[in-house]
Amino acid sequence: MSAYHPLTEAEAIEYARKLPDLFAPGSELSSREIGDGNLNLVFHISEPSSGKSIILKQALPYAKVVGESWPLTLDRARIESEALLIQESLCPKLVPHVHVYEPELALTVMQDLSDHVIMRKGLIEGQRYPLFAGHIATFLARTLFFTSDLGLNQQEKKERVKRFINPELCKITEDLIFDDPYTDSPNNNVPPAIRDAVEAVWQDNELHVEVAILRDKFLTKAQSLLHGDLHTGSIFIKADSTKVIDPEFAYYGPMGFDIGAVIANLLLNFAAQEGLSLDSASRRDYRDYLTGTIRDIWTKFEAEFRALWNEHGVDRMFRTPGFADYYLQEVLRDTVGFAGSKMVRRIHGLAQVADINQLQDEAARERAQRIALAIGTALIKSNRSVTSIDQLIETADKAVL
Amino acid sequence: MSAYHPLTEAEAIEYARKLPDLFAPGSELSSREIGDGNLNLVFHISEPSSGKSIILKQALPYAKVVGESWPLTLDRARIESEALLIQESLCPKLVPHVHVYEPELALTVMQDLSDHVIMRKGLIEGQRYPLFAGHIATFLARTLFFTSDLGLNQQEKKERVKRFINPELCKITEDLIFDDPYTDSPNNNVPPAIRDAVEAVWQDNELHVEVAILRDKFLTKAQSLLHGDLHTGSIFIKADSTKVIDPEFAYYGPMGFDIGAVIANLLLNFAAQEGLSLDSASRRDYRDYLTGTIRDIWTKFEAEFRALWNEHGVDRMFRTPGFADYYLQEVLRDTVGFAGSKMVRRIHGLAQVADINQLQDEAARERAQRIALAIGTALIKSNRSVTSIDQLIETADKAVL
Repeated sequence: MSAYHPLTEAEAIEYARKLPDLFAPGSELSSREIGDGNLNLVFHISEPSSGKSIILKQALPYAKVVGESWPLTLDRARIESEALLIQESLCPKLVPHVHVYEPELALTVMQDLSDHVIMRKGLIEGQRYPLFAGHIATFLARTLFFTSDLGLNQQEKKERVKRFINPELCKITEDLIFDDPYTDSPNNNVPPAIRDAVEAVWQDNELHVEVAILRDKFLTKAQSLLHGDLHTGSIFIKADSTKVIDPEFAYYGPMGFDIGAVIANLLLNFAAQEGLSLDSASRRDYRDYLTGTIRDIWTKFEAEFRALWNEHGVDRMFRTPGFADYYLQEVLRDTVGFAGSKMVRRIHGLAQVADINQLQDEAARERAQRIALAIGTALIKSNRSVTSIDQLIETADKAVL
Repeated sequence: MSAYHPLTEAEAIEYARKLPDLFAPGSELSSREIGDGNLNLVFHISEPSSGKSIILKQALPYAKVVGESWPLTLDRARIESEALLIQESLCPKLVPHVHVYEPELALTVMQDLSDHVIMRKGLIEGQRYPLFAGHIATFLARTLFFTSDLGLNQQEKKERVKRFINPELCKITEDLIFDDPYTDSPNNNVPPAIRDAVEAVWQDNELHVEVAILRDKFLTKAQSLLHGDLHTGSIFIKADSTKVIDPEFAYYGPMGFDIGAVIANLLLNFAAQEGLSLDSASRRDYRDYLTGTIRDIWTKFEAEFRALWNEHGVDRMFRTPGFADYYLQEVLRDTVGFAGSKMVRRIHGLAQVADINQLQDEAARERAQRIALAIGTALIKSNRSVTSIDQLIETADKAVL
């Protein structure tokens, strides 16, 4: 079974049976393939007699998006498993445990999280997760600090940059987030009802300059080992637990790209409340829950990051009084700019979000799309002058006045 | 001869004799070891009968600076030869030609440039090089543009970043340029006469914040493949030819670090005119030659860089009107900041410069050191607000009023 080939369910069971210390010898195992088949096979292997289960995730040598298929490196399975192991070493409770990584098969054996739900689904259903802000702030603070030149031996960090050079998956981001949405590209899916607003985005030179600056940062700012795709579909959640999954886009990039991804996806749900909420009072209430979560994420992130810096900073010059204030203001600005870019691409780009797209009421969907575009473009334009997370929240609130 | 060991002169001749198409079979060859023995062996191999000659440069597995010795990777010979080959492909006349690179021996066979002089020596002797500004501007514009995300396929650029991860040599820069000069480090060589000015540098928090920002850029801004050590001792020159040598510090970093290095070393000579010039009229005249050269370097660099961008830019978003202006202003600001850092470390850091240190008149030497420190610290402090190269030149001129 050692040469690469996509596993069958029978082979997945056979493979799982041979793993040490997981299942009872000879016991019956069942397998269900639960992936969406676009990028990976995902086998859910369970042992009914004990209730134990695991996930086998195998990378496919191609990507399928809206019917098209293009080759995609299997090396992303190595990058994903190595990133997961680093994240687990830094925040053990906030990622799935990796049992085994099998390079030949591009296969990762990991903890089953079936008792969690995908956060995007939970938010669409109107669930609230009071512990989420603290969990994700810890994930962001610890993974971004301890992989950066602030918290990691700076020569070791350079070797990490090398291991996480990820050209093919970065190119997806470069195209779909930092290019296509700003021109009439065949990769876009423009909702006809908002074509006027989309064309305004295509023609806005001031906006394009800011997007070019953000694109340049994505290409060159090797600050921390990022998750690289940290939307609410990459987060498994339940009341008392948050697990960040799927870091196959991991590479060394700007911290604000990960923080901005989380915030953008909360704001997309904020926009979608046009159709998700049943009345204006509950809409206002849920939106306040979302913006309160955003404020908490930034505030807790900043506090935890500063505490880590004080306790574990490796760099003498970086302890200069005043430098941390400058540094965190730059991270905030990047966060705001990347949050805006992540919102815009989800409205008329290739890959959109269920929060908005599943709205049945066409008028509500259109309002949600216009609100998201308004917030996204305003965040992009203001990113280099922002000084407080409150300004981001004001921008969101103003868009639904 | 294949396993690594430092070559003897006899072995160097034997090796050179076997190179194809260089020397006549059986002809007499002579060898002279002309390196300073601190980092590399440098054999000058010549064939008296024809006048032909070549250089064999072999990396030593250690570095010796002021008596101390520490191990240093032989991989730097690979980095140097690969960087030379890339530079030669972009500006064939501006670097020595590489005949052969022999990985096992950490050995590079290259063009002999004995008909050139080291530029630092030429400047100390009061020579002028009217073609230099154009030559170095072309070297900077072409090497920095075509290795960046502006002028190189962006996925290929990422593979280049990986090949030029250079932890050990970067650490030398991180320590000696961006740390030691700002604290009472045992690595410094503080001239007793200017101890008061050096202590002011150690206590200047505003300065340290700016140095921390520049240090962070050196660590994280993977913009272009840099030479990495582009002082006037890394430039061979004669009236009609400029050759940039010794790129063993090559890595992906901020463009302004290379441009700033050239400018800093012209400004160190500017300061040294306190003792090098015989009278105030010739002093003013040579200083005007140096600042005119600096203005020409920036102006020609910017013009050539913009022309390359217009003709060979690979990135659609980066053609947004206004982005190039933003980008080049940032490069200028980095240039000013790094020029300042490169000056300060040469006054009381570990490695100093002959322009100043060989001055016999103690009062002139002290004045030169104080001028260089004043210019360097002023450039560092002003770097983030500069909008024109004239401001840098005004800073220099003001320091000698």
